[in-house]
Formats: sequence, C-alpha cells, structure tokens
Amino acid sequence: EIVYQLSRHFSKKLIFKHKKILITAGPTQEPIDPVRFISNHSSGKMGFAIAEAFAMAGAEVTLVSGPVSIASPKGVKVEKVQSAQQMFEATSKYFSNSDIVVLSAAVADYTPLHVADKKIKKKEDVFTIEMTKTTDIAATLGKQKKNGQIIVGFALETDNEFENAKGKLERKNFDFVVLNSLQDSGAGFRYDTNKIKIIDRAGNIYDFDLKTKTEVAQDILNTIITFLA
Amino acid sequence: EIVYQLSRHFSKKLIFKHKKILITAGPTQEPIDPVRFISNHSSGKMGFAIAEAFAMAGAEVTLVSGPVSIASPKGVKVEKVQSAQQMFEATSKYFSNSDIVVLSAAVADYTPLHVADKKIKKKEDVFTIEMTKTTDIAATLGKQKKNGQIIVGFALETDNEFENAKGKLERKNFDFVVLNSLQDSGAGFRYDTNKIKIIDRAGNIYDFDLKTKTEVAQDILNTIITFLA
Repeated sequence: EIVYQLSRHFSKKLIFKHKKILITAGPTQEPIDPVRFISNHSSGKMGFAIAEAFAMAGAEVTLVSGPVSIASPKGVKVEKVQSAQQMFEATSKYFSNSDIVVLSAAVADYTPLHVADKKIKKKEDVFTIEMTKTTDIAATLGKQKKNGQIIVGFALETDNEFENAKGKLERKNFDFVVLNSLQDSGAGFRYDTNKIKIIDRAGNIYDFDLKTKTEVAQDILNTIITFLA
Repeated sequence: EIVYQLSRHFSKKLIFKHKKILITAGPTQEPIDPVRFISNHSSGKMGFAIAEAFAMAGAEVTLVSGPVSIASPKGVKVEKVQSAQQMFEATSKYFSNSDIVVLSAAVADYTPLHVADKKIKKKEDVFTIEMTKTTDIAATLGKQKKNGQIIVGFALETDNEFENAKGKLERKNFDFVVLNSLQDSGAGFRYDTNKIKIIDRAGNIYDFDLKTKTEVAQDILNTIITFLA
C-alpha cells in the first residue's frame, strides 16, 4: 500500500514536471462606488486546494485569484485581482503559455454599467443598478484553445444542473466540467468539504462522495491525468 | 509614568464595570440570489478593536457583526448576522438594555427589492437590480434613546465630510460621530491603521493622528469617558 502510494506520487511528479498550470479562484468584486460592490460567496478554497495539489505534483502553477482571505499555497505564483475585467486580463496573459487551465473562479456575469467616483448618498427611496455583461472568460479562452491544451470548467447550478453543465461544456469548449451543487449539504461555498460530479464530452458522469476540498482537488488532478494519456 | 498608566487602567476598569456596551461591526451582505450579494469593503477591524478595548476595561460587551474573517475578541459576546435587516433586528434586541452603543458597522443603505430563489442565469445583455432603502438603524435607535444612554455613530464620507457628518450627528441623535475619511492614506477599510476626527454636538472637532486601530479604539473609549462625567 505504501509502495503504491509512493509510486503514484512519483509518477504524478513525472507527469506534471515542466507542465504549466493556470488556475483561477475566488469571487470577483464589481465596484458600484468607492465603498460598495457586488460579489458572491466563493471562498477560493477549492481553487487554492487545486493549485496546491498541482504544485506538490511538480507543476509550475500560476493562480489568478479574486479577493479571498486565505494564505497563498507554497510554490505557487499568485496574482491577485478584483474585478471580472481584471481577472479576464490576467488570465489572458498566461493562457497561451499554459498546458492545463482550471477555471474554478466564480467570475461575475454582470458588472455595474456606471461606477460612481464618490460614495452614493442615501437620498432616493429606490434606486436601480444597471448591469452589463462581463467578458465570458471561459468562452473566450475556449475559442483560443490549441491542440493539447486542457481546459477544465466549473459549474454551480441551483436548478437543471445537468442540462446547464452540459451546455457550458459544449459552448465553452471545456474538456470536462466540475459540477458543484448547492443542494448537497456540506458542499460548495464556505465549507471545507465539497461534493462534485465530473461530466466529460463523451457524456460520462462521475459522481464523487462528500470529501475535503484537498481530496476533491486530488480527484480533479487524477481525472486530468487520464486526459494526458 | 507606569503608575499613571496603571491608575488610568484601573480607573477605566471601575468606570466600565457593570456597563453594558453594544457594538456593531463589519459590512452587511444583501442577497441578490443564492450566490450573489451586494456588500462593502468594511473589514470589521475597527469595531472588533473597540469591542476588545471595552472588554479589557471591564465592560459587558455584545458585538453584532456582519460577515468578517477575524477572530472574536476574548470576553465579548459575538452575534453574527448577514443582512442589514438581520443587523437591525439583533441591534434592536440589545439596545434598550445597553448603556453605551457604538455603531461602527457599514450597514447597507439599500437592499435588492426582489431576491431570486434560484441562481440568475446569464441571458440578457443588460439587467437592472432594483433597490429599496433598508431600515436606518442609527436613526431608529436615536429616536428611542433614553436619558443617560450614549450613542456613538460613524461616518465615512468621500466629499463634504464635515457637513455630512454633522447632519448625521443631528438626524440620528448621536452624542458624537467618528469621521473616517477615505482621503487619508493608510486609513479606513482593509488597513490596520486609521485616522479619525471626532465631532460632538457642541460643534467641537477633535483631529487625531494616523494610529493603529487598537490605539484609535482607545481614543474613542477615552472620549466616551468624558461623556460619563
């Protein structure tokens, strides 16, 4: 058993040695004015765990992260960003030179059309925030994908999860998609555990148990190994 | 000098012994749907430092805090809330029984009128979030203020700071207001330092140097002592 674990460890080391991995993690913050913003509940824990797993397996890892309050994993180059636009720019910079791309960040789909340069005063009884679409990072990178590049996407769905996740897989040219469900207790945002399903382009669905995010990261890494063969 | 510090420490202990202090801290999160929300850059550090200073001075401290990632101060009863409405309810519960109230939380002024129960899908090119006013916690408590109660408010202004802060002081029936400016470097959100001005109802303005938030908390506590006399 120990020998098996060791050999598995060393073979992974060999597989990811000299591989360049790009990982996105965390939420983005879309400014409304100098103090207010729109964001989401992503903690960044899942993406940071994936970055750490790849670094331990010998890869050169770049992690583009939104605002999170967790420490950077050892041996990982971390680039911090705030908005969806900044995450798009940072991710684009590293994409063409990356062998494997794991898009686990929860990037804002919409951002305020106008950003006030002063704090908005509380006067009107109601006010509306007009929102415009952000650049779809995954779709943009998916179109630029070269032979041999692997792109892994994430989907978080609260309804019609399989249809929505499969649609994402096709539209964004992912090799596989990791599906998080908010329906599973102990899974998703804020928790240290997660419960995922992996869906590939052949239509296979792999259903994993509730595990720590470190173990889930290992499952994702192992799935990527099968795509390298 | 040591004797002076010690005596100051002990006299503070006596002054705040059996005093009930209510402190609010941190941002609020106003949900848009199960994953998205509107928030602000408050870290909660200033309010937590004030809670700690009062606890060390012998007071019974209740801290109502929005979502923050800092540890609870020793000897302080912490009640965590998410939205402005939840913060209003928790604060109302403790108010009538409190001797001193320090409202340092950055409570949302507006909250989405409709909260989607499922994650909003990215379909339309633009969409608008309709916002409605939240309950003004400070103004509501200010109206209920009894003889002998002290209420300290906070103001964060990006323009016309004195006029806005003085207006707040009157409208909300504060005994004094702590003015944070985003114009001072090293002050305000995210930093461990802060630079404040204190404005009282007599129109006095006390301008403090840039200090650690622990030292600023002490300045606020010392100012409150002068109101107890």
